[in-house]
Amino acid sequence: MTQNIAILGASGYTGAELVRLIATHPSMRITALSGDRKAGMAMGDVFPHLRHLPLPTLQKIEEIDFSTVDLAFCALPHATSQAVIAALPGDLRVVDLSADFRLRDPAAYEKWYGKPHSALELQREAVYGLTEFYREQIRAARLVAGTGCNAAAGQYALRPLISAGVIDLDEIVIDLKAGVSGAGRSLKENLLHAELSGGTMPYSAGGTHRHLGEFDQEFSMLAGREVQVQFTPHLMPFNRGILATVYVRGDAGQIHATLASAYADEPFLQVLPIGALPSTRSIAGSNFVHIGVVADRIAGRALVIVALDNLTKGSSGQALQNANLMLGNDETAGLMLAPVFP
Amino acid sequence: MTQNIAILGASGYTGAELVRLIATHPSMRITALSGDRKAGMAMGDVFPHLRHLPLPTLQKIEEIDFSTVDLAFCALPHATSQAVIAALPGDLRVVDLSADFRLRDPAAYEKWYGKPHSALELQREAVYGLTEFYREQIRAARLVAGTGCNAAAGQYALRPLISAGVIDLDEIVIDLKAGVSGAGRSLKENLLHAELSGGTMPYSAGGTHRHLGEFDQEFSMLAGREVQVQFTPHLMPFNRGILATVYVRGDAGQIHATLASAYADEPFLQVLPIGALPSTRSIAGSNFVHIGVVADRIAGRALVIVALDNLTKGSSGQALQNANLMLGNDETAGLMLAPVFP
Amino acid sequence: MTQNIAILGASGYTGAELVRLIATHPSMRITALSGDRKAGMAMGDVFPHLRHLPLPTLQKIEEIDFSTVDLAFCALPHATSQAVIAALPGDLRVVDLSADFRLRDPAAYEKWYGKPHSALELQREAVYGLTEFYREQIRAARLVAGTGCNAAAGQYALRPLISAGVIDLDEIVIDLKAGVSGAGRSLKENLLHAELSGGTMPYSAGGTHRHLGEFDQEFSMLAGREVQVQFTPHLMPFNRGILATVYVRGDAGQIHATLASAYADEPFLQVLPIGALPSTRSIAGSNFVHIGVVADRIAGRALVIVALDNLTKGSSGQALQNANLMLGNDETAGLMLAPVFP
Amino acid sequence: MTQNIAILGASGYTGAELVRLIATHPSMRITALSGDRKAGMAMGDVFPHLRHLPLPTLQKIEEIDFSTVDLAFCALPHATSQAVIAALPGDLRVVDLSADFRLRDPAAYEKWYGKPHSALELQREAVYGLTEFYREQIRAARLVAGTGCNAAAGQYALRPLISAGVIDLDEIVIDLKAGVSGAGRSLKENLLHAELSGGTMPYSAGGTHRHLGEFDQEFSMLAGREVQVQFTPHLMPFNRGILATVYVRGDAGQIHATLASAYADEPFLQVLPIGALPSTRSIAGSNFVHIGVVADRIAGRALVIVALDNLTKGSSGQALQNANLMLGNDETAGLMLAPVFP
Repeated sequence: MTQNIAILGASGYTGAELVRLIATHPSMRITALSGDRKAGMAMGDVFPHLRHLPLPTLQKIEEIDFSTVDLAFCALPHATSQAVIAALPGDLRVVDLSADFRLRDPAAYEKWYGKPHSALELQREAVYGLTEFYREQIRAARLVAGTGCNAAAGQYALRPLISAGVIDLDEIVIDLKAGVSGAGRSLKENLLHAELSGGTMPYSAGGTHRHLGEFDQEFSMLAGREVQVQFTPHLMPFNRGILATVYVRGDAGQIHATLASAYADEPFLQVLPIGALPSTRSIAGSNFVHIGVVADRIAGRALVIVALDNLTKGSSGQALQNANLMLGNDETAGLMLAPVFP
Repeated sequence: MTQNIAILGASGYTGAELVRLIATHPSMRITALSGDRKAGMAMGDVFPHLRHLPLPTLQKIEEIDFSTVDLAFCALPHATSQAVIAALPGDLRVVDLSADFRLRDPAAYEKWYGKPHSALELQREAVYGLTEFYREQIRAARLVAGTGCNAAAGQYALRPLISAGVIDLDEIVIDLKAGVSGAGRSLKENLLHAELSGGTMPYSAGGTHRHLGEFDQEFSMLAGREVQVQFTPHLMPFNRGILATVYVRGDAGQIHATLASAYADEPFLQVLPIGALPSTRSIAGSNFVHIGVVADRIAGRALVIVALDNLTKGSSGQALQNANLMLGNDETAGLMLAPVFP
Repeated sequence: MTQNIAILGASGYTGAELVRLIATHPSMRITALSGDRKAGMAMGDVFPHLRHLPLPTLQKIEEIDFSTVDLAFCALPHATSQAVIAALPGDLRVVDLSADFRLRDPAAYEKWYGKPHSALELQREAVYGLTEFYREQIRAARLVAGTGCNAAAGQYALRPLISAGVIDLDEIVIDLKAGVSGAGRSLKENLLHAELSGGTMPYSAGGTHRHLGEFDQEFSMLAGREVQVQFTPHLMPFNRGILATVYVRGDAGQIHATLASAYADEPFLQVLPIGALPSTRSIAGSNFVHIGVVADRIAGRALVIVALDNLTKGSSGQALQNANLMLGNDETAGLMLAPVFP
Repeated sequence: MTQNIAILGASGYTGAELVRLIATHPSMRITALSGDRKAGMAMGDVFPHLRHLPLPTLQKIEEIDFSTVDLAFCALPHATSQAVIAALPGDLRVVDLSADFRLRDPAAYEKWYGKPHSALELQREAVYGLTEFYREQIRAARLVAGTGCNAAAGQYALRPLISAGVIDLDEIVIDLKAGVSGAGRSLKENLLHAELSGGTMPYSAGGTHRHLGEFDQEFSMLAGREVQVQFTPHLMPFNRGILATVYVRGDAGQIHATLASAYADEPFLQVLPIGALPSTRSIAGSNFVHIGVVADRIAGRALVIVALDNLTKGSSGQALQNANLMLGNDETAGLMLAPVFP
């Protein structure tokens, strides 16, 4: 059975990554691609690495006939998604990759994104897309909200630990190293090769990064009390990959056992032997996540280190995994590509 | 039908790349991996990016039972391969990725590789592995010799042009930019990140690079006379990809038409519209080749620009493509992965 | 004696590089910096790497009092410079780093830059700034036109060879690898880290790059006949450095001797022993140029390879060298900084 | 007055960096270079970026006549230095860049470096080389022990805060990003460009990095009680620079004021305005240190972020600064080079 897929916002990196992944998917077929500023262009001209694929020409969203579409991925910029999705047919399955439907609390949305949400009903309907923890809701959902890429990395480190009560909730530091593709294809001076390569610096330091809204929401819900983590991302001179170094108070052995047990049956989450150190190079280009646990020399402290690819498991791979659930496919369809190394 | 595959020399980059590609192959199954110095190790410890795959433990070659193996890839260092392959069962299909069987003339081998060949009968038997030009011989072959990665790039630019007689055979310059993984995992000072990143330099300049042996052999055979090209490779601060900028005398329109026609039915060779410029970024991680043709402002001169991934189309992807032919598979099986960008 | 220096267009890379170099200059003092869009900002906020220096606040050009300025560097974009310089005091010494005054022939300017020149008198007055070949004119000049960075690299390889008549003028190929800072700080998609890093591609291929105007002008003048070279630049995933690989017909020994003799007394031009290969890494951050000569295996052909830093010897360092001559300073003042490696 | 300088171990990165810095030093002259495996070679052949300098040929240490040497820099590998320095003339001023004399307690040395110290008297004599905090002792010292590069970064963040008692001593996390040149020129697989570029991973995680010995020694001494920090370094895909992100409990305003006051008169330590974020790109190639302080959204927590170049301020620049003090020179002589950007 073929599933007809539309990708809205196909001219950005997450859109292109969806095309890459779906290219070898056994049942999905891309029947519509939108890209407002690039409408009328061939996808292979926007992204030459996709030129070998038979793909529909980029259209404006309003030109797409959604009646034959089984599922739409919405890879539009934050704040744009809500209006676009509100205008789609009400029974169309949608996986949104933007930040628009990640936060359930309208006040939290407004706090982190700076303006009121314009589609509150959809916001209530949306299921948070961290697959391993919302699998059943996602299977039944019509609208799934993809998580932030950094938010995914931090949650893979911490959710089972918070649930199991094996770490101190008031002493969590997430120091994160983020590949630059997470910033998208936007034309900003600090994203130029000449500015970014050959060094690093923090950004959104001190608790101002928007993905903190997701940490606050999810960790507090899991803990049944308010949890606030410290979170500092750093812009890295590489294109793909997030490394989250998470400092916690707790027993490393217990932490490792908790994570290993929680993820034992997960196809994409790999808990390394205790003491082994993940590298972003070992997951880049794939949907796999490597998770390491290390005991610190100071008794009662440990590190949890998570590596994932922001464009696959952090966004487009996660989105495809969720779409597979929503459409009744094998959850891993199109996603078993091995990482590319070197 | 499952095909049992052995990879000899699996602890190098081309070995790992074979594993990556075969991981999603519909009929091949890896049943043996060798790595002399790493015998006894799990492949996932040698290459953590492959840790999610169920793979045999690395063995010494002499420990492998070849009686159940359908085909062996030999990814051993140059000069090592000939002895190893000579000792394998005489009816075992072998795709060799080393330089040992690329040159048909023993004198040429000795000239370029500095010592006499030790397996002359195998050398005579081996079929040169540039798939698109030796397809029928490869299909029938027992032993196929993978081409040099640079040699593949230059030949994709030039073979149809030499055959068609549309360029001057005495005025060919191949200026080549080579990603560092082509040098393998060897511990050399000039391959360190601190030495290599952030700049470039030529190497083997002036006609001393061994892949010239392949150019000489193939181009002279095609032309029916001696052809010598100028060839200067440059070591590039990136991991995957070769860009060959080939300067020729000839009519750009005729050159473009010749290449477009020659490769019209090839699944992996993509001739871009005339004037369009290939980028290694658009093929990295894949078996695809992008070929561009540009007319120079000087009448009667043109550039042919070829981009391919040295680890896929330049070695392991080519090897798998050839193995597919030898085993009667769809030639593209396991090879349709889209390039990874960004 | 202190020399008061103004830098117009200080918010770009060449402006910042001038500040870096002048920072340790024994007699120059920066008394004015302009940056139209950033007027009112501290230079250390525009370029944090310069924050330790006591520098004037950025101004608009029209706010600068030029009466106390001894020399102005003009690091403005192409086409902007001519109007700005025309409006400066007529006796002010100016070193222009733009393309506006490089071509002596107004028709050539219009051909390569797409519109008529607006300051023809200045164009006639300007001295071409390739220091080693125009030293005496520069010493006496009021207005010096900095060369293109690629144009400098190609000329260092070829000028003495053309003058000495030791190469074939009709068979010159310049394959050039250019670090990205040569493209300036402009916000273009292809200059983003995510697009540019990890690979390479040609640009302005086929004889369309504007620096060909300089090659045509200078080489034809030297040869006393029209000379047209082939020139293909490639965008490199590093920030500083140009490597020009120049293919010529001629005797390598004679070529090497000609270059070694021509540059024997030059403080910045280093001709390596024959066969030695230059690397951009060995000159980055400095005003030095490394020049290598290699004989090809094909008799009568040779390579000349030039490495220089596009921001120093290719623009700002050259400009300072010329300014030193114009002001009667030691020509090397402020320029003897060693390259930065690794 | 000229000072004759010997550099022992000149074939490594810190040795080459010393040569680079001393090249423009007003009073120092390099009269001897040692490099055991490269004895007999010209320095310009070992490091082509230094080929323009008139330098002595590399010798074996035992061939050097130290009677005319005013000061020796010892840039030899850890554990090698102690025997070499013990054999030098007892009145020769020495700045050692290895780890051999950093730890005052022989037991601590043995714990972190795995074997007993062989020159205990020298160990007692050596002054710890963190210039800003040991200035007077260094001025009077005969033997100065250069600090670890990571150790320098962490101490610049924390020493004034510990002294002033403005942070919680039991809650200090140093997450550090280290450029690869800190690992030296050693041939290790993980330092290859193909392995290291394009991603990141931690190393020596969990409190096993040797620079912790310095943190323990210095912080405990300052605090008058045992202080243990958490410290996790990460290997970065760039060549120069360390970014230390230090998580502390304390008031950000007070922290900023403490650092700003402590470093107000320091020529190389630049405390940025509160909230401003340092980048390694803004100090690379120079002896400057950028220090930022950011308040976290969680009241009572703050970040201190330090950027320095591991090869200059982290080792060779620090060494030269100390040598200047020991020889009565201006402390900043040879060290005012601006950072290289882009």
